[in-house]
Amino acid sequence: MTLPQRYYTDSDVYSREMDRFFFGRWMCAGREEQAANTGDYFLVELAGESVIVTRDASGKLQAHFNVCRHRGTRMCTEHSGSFAGGKIRCPYHAWTYGLDGGLLGAPHMGKDFDRTEYPLKPVAVDTWQGFVFLNFSEAPASLAEQLAPLTQAFAPWRMSELRMHRRVVYDVRANWKLIVANYNECLHCPPVHPALNKLTDYLGADNVAPSPHYIGGSMGFKPGIETMSPDGVRRRDYLPGLGEAERKQVAYYAIYPNLLLSLHPDYMMIHTLWPRAVDRTEIVCEFHFHPAEMAKPGFVSEDAIELWDLTNREDWRISELSQLGIGSRGYTPGPYSQREELLQAFDQVVTTGQMLE
Amino acid sequence: MTLPQRYYTDSDVYSREMDRFFFGRWMCAGREEQAANTGDYFLVELAGESVIVTRDASGKLQAHFNVCRHRGTRMCTEHSGSFAGGKIRCPYHAWTYGLDGGLLGAPHMGKDFDRTEYPLKPVAVDTWQGFVFLNFSEAPASLAEQLAPLTQAFAPWRMSELRMHRRVVYDVRANWKLIVANYNECLHCPPVHPALNKLTDYLGADNVAPSPHYIGGSMGFKPGIETMSPDGVRRRDYLPGLGEAERKQVAYYAIYPNLLLSLHPDYMMIHTLWPRAVDRTEIVCEFHFHPAEMAKPGFVSEDAIELWDLTNREDWRISELSQLGIGSRGYTPGPYSQREELLQAFDQVVTTGQMLE
Amino acid sequence: MTLPQRYYTDSDVYSREMDRFFFGRWMCAGREEQAANTGDYFLVELAGESVIVTRDASGKLQAHFNVCRHRGTRMCTEHSGSFAGGKIRCPYHAWTYGLDGGLLGAPHMGKDFDRTEYPLKPVAVDTWQGFVFLNFSEAPASLAEQLAPLTQAFAPWRMSELRMHRRVVYDVRANWKLIVANYNECLHCPPVHPALNKLTDYLGADNVAPSPHYIGGSMGFKPGIETMSPDGVRRRDYLPGLGEAERKQVAYYAIYPNLLLSLHPDYMMIHTLWPRAVDRTEIVCEFHFHPAEMAKPGFVSEDAIELWDLTNREDWRISELSQLGIGSRGYTPGPYSQREELLQAFDQVVTTGQMLE
Repeated sequence: MTLPQRYYTDSDVYSREMDRFFFGRWMCAGREEQAANTGDYFLVELAGESVIVTRDASGKLQAHFNVCRHRGTRMCTEHSGSFAGGKIRCPYHAWTYGLDGGLLGAPHMGKDFDRTEYPLKPVAVDTWQGFVFLNFSEAPASLAEQLAPLTQAFAPWRMSELRMHRRVVYDVRANWKLIVANYNECLHCPPVHPALNKLTDYLGADNVAPSPHYIGGSMGFKPGIETMSPDGVRRRDYLPGLGEAERKQVAYYAIYPNLLLSLHPDYMMIHTLWPRAVDRTEIVCEFHFHPAEMAKPGFVSEDAIELWDLTNREDWRISELSQLGIGSRGYTPGPYSQREELLQAFDQVVTTGQMLE
Repeated sequence: MTLPQRYYTDSDVYSREMDRFFFGRWMCAGREEQAANTGDYFLVELAGESVIVTRDASGKLQAHFNVCRHRGTRMCTEHSGSFAGGKIRCPYHAWTYGLDGGLLGAPHMGKDFDRTEYPLKPVAVDTWQGFVFLNFSEAPASLAEQLAPLTQAFAPWRMSELRMHRRVVYDVRANWKLIVANYNECLHCPPVHPALNKLTDYLGADNVAPSPHYIGGSMGFKPGIETMSPDGVRRRDYLPGLGEAERKQVAYYAIYPNLLLSLHPDYMMIHTLWPRAVDRTEIVCEFHFHPAEMAKPGFVSEDAIELWDLTNREDWRISELSQLGIGSRGYTPGPYSQREELLQAFDQVVTTGQMLE
Repeated sequence: MTLPQRYYTDSDVYSREMDRFFFGRWMCAGREEQAANTGDYFLVELAGESVIVTRDASGKLQAHFNVCRHRGTRMCTEHSGSFAGGKIRCPYHAWTYGLDGGLLGAPHMGKDFDRTEYPLKPVAVDTWQGFVFLNFSEAPASLAEQLAPLTQAFAPWRMSELRMHRRVVYDVRANWKLIVANYNECLHCPPVHPALNKLTDYLGADNVAPSPHYIGGSMGFKPGIETMSPDGVRRRDYLPGLGEAERKQVAYYAIYPNLLLSLHPDYMMIHTLWPRAVDRTEIVCEFHFHPAEMAKPGFVSEDAIELWDLTNREDWRISELSQLGIGSRGYTPGPYSQREELLQAFDQVVTTGQMLE
């Protein structure tokens, strides 16, 4: 059965869920290429928080709250950039920090003041396959262990080598879990996605056993289809590491809490989810390609982007309708079909430790 | 004395009031003509709810929550229309229901699934004089009995025969009770309504004894006035069933919780109130005429619409000022005059069982 | 150390603070010139309240809630004006009051009705140096006593003689206390205000001992500077009462809760703060000059207005960044420097009796 209403409509449940399921887990924050060189940074903003992710002089990624230790000022406002001279300087009273968060200067603080007591507050940061993950807990579990099975399974796609080509941002009036649920079943494909449904068989999903850290599976193409594009034609070379099997399917995985990873034969699409309120989610959809492919004359991407933009909008609309209906006093949990088994696994993981009824 | 502040400003009081006084009573949802034929439907939307009102194959009206029993999706989004083939189909996973709410199809639910357990959830529906009423309680009282005295009194107007000609929607920043109170006294007519005040004597209201289900009375025209129009001139035939007495007055009745019924010699005006928040109400104002009159060449309606649009806006503005003042820490309940006796009856009915002080 | 997060982000703390620190104190409501003659009035609007300040026939200022005692209607809607015939009339049912708040007329109230029981509810009003102050408490302390030291110190500026020339209104996304804090230290001047910093020495503040009712001090000009204008040139005569000392400095005082008073050699700038929410403040900035100066041909003011508009915007932006950072789970109170001693005094006064931790 689906979850009770409050999981989708109650702001208090939402706040607890954010604390536990987002801020208490490794969440996807972006890609390593967003802070490629020493001093480069990008901001990660979620639920009122702002975190600076930067690369230090040793080449290591660093993540700190974007909050000056003096009077709490948000220091960086540009979404990305580079710290001149490798220093992070608060615009209010010029407290200055190193890329590792250490406090370097604080004017007029007196001789008893000990700079080492006021570094920027760190956030745990790690990487996987070119992705940057953050974790706000005190003692995070190992990201590498959590995703080890996927590391092996996804090796042929060589995700670390891929680079972003296009980003599209959507503002969706639905609880973030409805987006995850929508992503993880294709029973809705015939009614909702007439274009997409021509390319893959909605009954053809081959799902792996659910993990506490992800769910997903693969879908094979219909005969004559070579990738997800409006006409099924593939306009780019296969990604270099793929074997015969990977060339005939798309791998769709939801890595909790906020990464939806869609591996195609010739490109990678990712969605990251950024909840804004119990009934609102910002969704960032990115298209990544192999640099060698992007360097070719005649490189095209619009076919893939067009198909998925259409499909995305169809999904967001139906998720918004779910949000509206679930808010009714006429809503009660309903039964999942045989084609929605991943959703049951997701519901169970997300509600573990917070089941309210 | 007027009610304490919290009845007009406290969101919790408002929520309880909605539950008890709107969702626990027969509320006016529209007119039968909005679902004239089998398969025609219209949506009733209030306080986040959406209800489908449709006419089944037997000609009977049906009302159901607009919520699929599978995953809670809001199914219909058009405000009105017709169900093709007499079936209500959820756009998400194609669960399909009959006009009576019965579940006809649910893909991939397995052989143990019993469709009869998942019909659309019904809402009680009844009609009176061409009006459609909904009731969300489990065991609603009889609408016919509640309004029996009005059925008799209003028989000459033959309301069932009338048809809508024009609808105007207003968004008013005031608690719904301030709209009802404003409607039920004409002491404000000289200061607020200079145009209207030329047509009727504000001291000439002849009110009936208040009922738990409605309040109201009649007002006669000033000499030389034949209907409510800017110049008092009547530009349409009298409604066919009216006698001498009904031709010389307007009957103004508030039928709880949300119907304001104004019966003129040559037309019917109705307001329905749709609370959106404790301090906000959507008001739908409609003008209904006799079909025979509307069929005549040279039929005009703008005189009536113009007078009442002006009067409506004057009323909404003064009600919004009441909302603002009542929200002040300088507000305390004030004394009603001898010309506001219907408001005391209204206050008593609406607060019965929820008096907070 | 700075205050805990909740003082800047919690709506409940904000409401209590408004009750105690704004509505429980003398707050600055405007200038006497805004109601110069009998019957002139202006509205004071704060936190949903509206107060009518008017001058009665005896020349005395009166302040009353803008709430009719009949049904609570807000009576005046124009921000300022004059009451024709010296009467305040409710637009709803024509209850009529005198300028002293006494109820003069109430139609159809019956013979047992006693008008003397329903005057407009008064708010305490007093004046100081041309400023109008309101106090919502039952038994306010003496304004004159609270500000006595300033009365003496500011006598040379003859503030009562000055008249407003220009008003600029800002809507700032920051808690009101961050605005006060920002005003009371110049440690931020070098990083935030490059233009202003050319005119005064940020280390040159000469602060008086903090009072429970105000904080502040003076700052001298850098060599060659004669007033606060983009080039430091003074384009108006010195205010008539100033001695040598007052001509070489600006006095900056925060008079709690909402008046920031900046006395220049040739003009007076005032900010009044109007909190709208825990994280939002409307700020009114006014420039007052001597009437004799304004009467001169060639009177100019743009130099002063331009410098301060630039400086204001720099301050609002950095205050908004503080609001954002303080809202983070990465915020903890930080240490004040030796140049922020007035802020500690302010924090102590504003939190007295409500320290939450």
